[in-house]
Amino acid sequence: MINEIIELIHTKQYSHLKEILSEMEPFDIAALYDELPEQHMPLLYRLLPKETAAEVFVELDSDSQEMLIKGFSDNELKEVLDELYLDDAVDIIEEMPANVVKRILRHTDIEMRSQINNLLNYPKDSAGSIMTIEFVDLKEDMTVQDAFTRIRRTGLDKETIYTCYVTDKNRILLGIVTAKELLLAEEDCIISDIMETNPIYVNTSCDKEEVALQLSKYDFLALPVVDNENRLVGIVTVDDAIDVIQDEATEDIEKMAGIMPSEKPYLKTSIVDIFKQRIPWLLLLMVSASFTQAVISHFTDALDKLSVLTLFIPMLMGTGGNSGSQASVTVIRGLSLDEIEFKDIFKIIWKECGVAILCGVTLAIATFLKLLIFDHVSITIAIVVCAAMASTVFFSKLVGCTLPLMAKKIGFDPAVMASPLITTIVDAMSLVIYFNIATAVLSF
Amino acid sequence: MINEIIELIHTKQYSHLKEILSEMEPFDIAALYDELPEQHMPLLYRLLPKETAAEVFVELDSDSQEMLIKGFSDNELKEVLDELYLDDAVDIIEEMPANVVKRILRHTDIEMRSQINNLLNYPKDSAGSIMTIEFVDLKEDMTVQDAFTRIRRTGLDKETIYTCYVTDKNRILLGIVTAKELLLAEEDCIISDIMETNPIYVNTSCDKEEVALQLSKYDFLALPVVDNENRLVGIVTVDDAIDVIQDEATEDIEKMAGIMPSEKPYLKTSIVDIFKQRIPWLLLLMVSASFTQAVISHFTDALDKLSVLTLFIPMLMGTGGNSGSQASVTVIRGLSLDEIEFKDIFKIIWKECGVAILCGVTLAIATFLKLLIFDHVSITIAIVVCAAMASTVFFSKLVGCTLPLMAKKIGFDPAVMASPLITTIVDAMSLVIYFNIATAVLSF
Repeated sequence: MINEIIELIHTKQYSHLKEILSEMEPFDIAALYDELPEQHMPLLYRLLPKETAAEVFVELDSDSQEMLIKGFSDNELKEVLDELYLDDAVDIIEEMPANVVKRILRHTDIEMRSQINNLLNYPKDSAGSIMTIEFVDLKEDMTVQDAFTRIRRTGLDKETIYTCYVTDKNRILLGIVTAKELLLAEEDCIISDIMETNPIYVNTSCDKEEVALQLSKYDFLALPVVDNENRLVGIVTVDDAIDVIQDEATEDIEKMAGIMPSEKPYLKTSIVDIFKQRIPWLLLLMVSASFTQAVISHFTDALDKLSVLTLFIPMLMGTGGNSGSQASVTVIRGLSLDEIEFKDIFKIIWKECGVAILCGVTLAIATFLKLLIFDHVSITIAIVVCAAMASTVFFSKLVGCTLPLMAKKIGFDPAVMASPLITTIVDAMSLVIYFNIATAVLSF
Repeated sequence: MINEIIELIHTKQYSHLKEILSEMEPFDIAALYDELPEQHMPLLYRLLPKETAAEVFVELDSDSQEMLIKGFSDNELKEVLDELYLDDAVDIIEEMPANVVKRILRHTDIEMRSQINNLLNYPKDSAGSIMTIEFVDLKEDMTVQDAFTRIRRTGLDKETIYTCYVTDKNRILLGIVTAKELLLAEEDCIISDIMETNPIYVNTSCDKEEVALQLSKYDFLALPVVDNENRLVGIVTVDDAIDVIQDEATEDIEKMAGIMPSEKPYLKTSIVDIFKQRIPWLLLLMVSASFTQAVISHFTDALDKLSVLTLFIPMLMGTGGNSGSQASVTVIRGLSLDEIEFKDIFKIIWKECGVAILCGVTLAIATFLKLLIFDHVSITIAIVVCAAMASTVFFSKLVGCTLPLMAKKIGFDPAVMASPLITTIVDAMSLVIYFNIATAVLSF
């Protein structure tokens, strides 16, 4: 595909190129442009029809956007900006260096500039920061016919026309009416008779993850956002909610693996940036491994006397770590999806204790057989290892399920409490259990 | 809230109850019902208006659905079934025991029964299994006015009317036109003039994860599904796509933590079922820890001579495991989101090697300082541990990034290759590296 495009550029077959591009989705065009050699971008971009151009521009990665903006004439820049939805413009501005931002703001009119500034002022990750202010608003005394007239007049520039918002003269949200309801109603129906009152809405400061969850829970196409005076200021549309859901899942997964989350896709992130995402946890966990080291060194005597005990350290630590992270990951994901709350803590502990006993006993029996049949250790040693195994599994599950809940309660991020940190705690704990049982049974 | 409802039931204030329920979203009503004592459910369910009742029914968990169905009169059952969208009906049927399924099928008419059977026959996790067959289809020679007439006549029972599908007489998909385009067009426009040709579509056998990714990529509200003869047979709507995205993320997270994925929420899953999800990997990983055990036992002589070496086993194994899973988790997530493909393997290895060298050197220096300053070990031992540290980090990252790619290539699930399995490989590897360096440098 790319080679074909480059070939067409070189042979100047622009009308053929235009034709190919007109058949493609904006997302695919953007993906193609991002892979093309830089020098072809401005030319190709100018081959796009105006509306498509704006849609493609939004989907480009920020390096390409910056490159294009720098090459734009003032007129071209103004044209693109006029076509962009405000929330997309703000997303782009947030990624640009200061001089580009200045140039962009210089080419927007006063009203748009103040709206952009407003949006830029909402806290990162809030509903305000991801909402769009281009929605269809109706009045409650309009007829269905009036509503359609309004939609036809203003709809082209709105991000969605499928959910319309009914407000009073102070812009307070009174109700919601969908395009489906409008289409299926009689033309002379009054909006207030068909609108749904008590609509679900969120505040501008609401966390964007919460917004996305609400949208997905209620199967809405858009969710209204109000300010502190309950005035309707914007809406979050379902396509933005999907992006949030995917980003948050990625972030959770990264945190669980001890990676500082980043917003850039992996292949676009430089080696140094990836290094910076990963080294903090590696260093921290390396240092915290001193605990395990301290435990082992405290029991050096025991190990010296019976070095066979060393053999089972990795197995015990590994099983403990795995058991713990199974429990923690389950709880963290449940918290993220709002399926679990802090008040469920006793139900969860009860459940995990049950699971822990079943897992612990099964693993202990399996280990016992393995030790006797394959490893030919003495029955005493086998008993020590199996008792340590069962206890480790039990306590690991307990730590794994409670720690994320505690973290959430005191306002920390539960995902950070996951695998790496819990593994460290569980590692030290499993050794303490192991050596204490060994010392007691073998009476060193 | 629940106590208030129960109080209202006991005092028989049904009209007040009806009023409260009429203000609530179906999702919230279902959440409320799922928490109520069973005996109140049928009564409360009968207080709902017919359309809301069907929406609530869909959101209930399957135990409650089963309970309600068993209590329904034949007439009631028929009423609910008539209101359900077919894809929802199929989802419900899939969760019911055989006798309930039989009763459901007995109360659907022949046409619906055959449609349900069709949907039930699509492979699990395919586009066919999650699509809805209730969409608006138009003909290309219709005018915009004809289209609106058709939407008004049939729209009430369609899951979405916002994307309409233009088909020819053989039901081949010709194009797509959105309700927005229809609303903004002149009434006498011909559909074929305003429809978008070359629409993006998927086959019924396409994986549902792929379907959801396409939908989110192109910001569509629905994606058409065609059969092997290219006939339009259904659509997947954005709300179902969101559910798929969330479920797939949960599944990936579970697999990364060595848990067999389940579709039930944690709090609804029994202890025995959770045990069954978790024990296979725990057993497998316990057995595979025999490798580490074998490595240690091979080097028992070295350890006996210099037991201080034992102290650093957990730190090396832990850092190796963490480094490896950082790399693997990043690659797995990238694969899931379609950001990474197998053809990127050399780019990725190159990147990971860079990151690994930076991380390895940083960690080695930090360890070196820590060993000399806090642990007071000899310089020779410190060098051995640090060299082992740097090499372990390097090879862990390499294994971590290549294994998921290889798995994907040969058709295995990359997520299963993540943390637990890689950790085991890395554990054994880090010990081999450590002891070999120790033997070489300290020349036992």
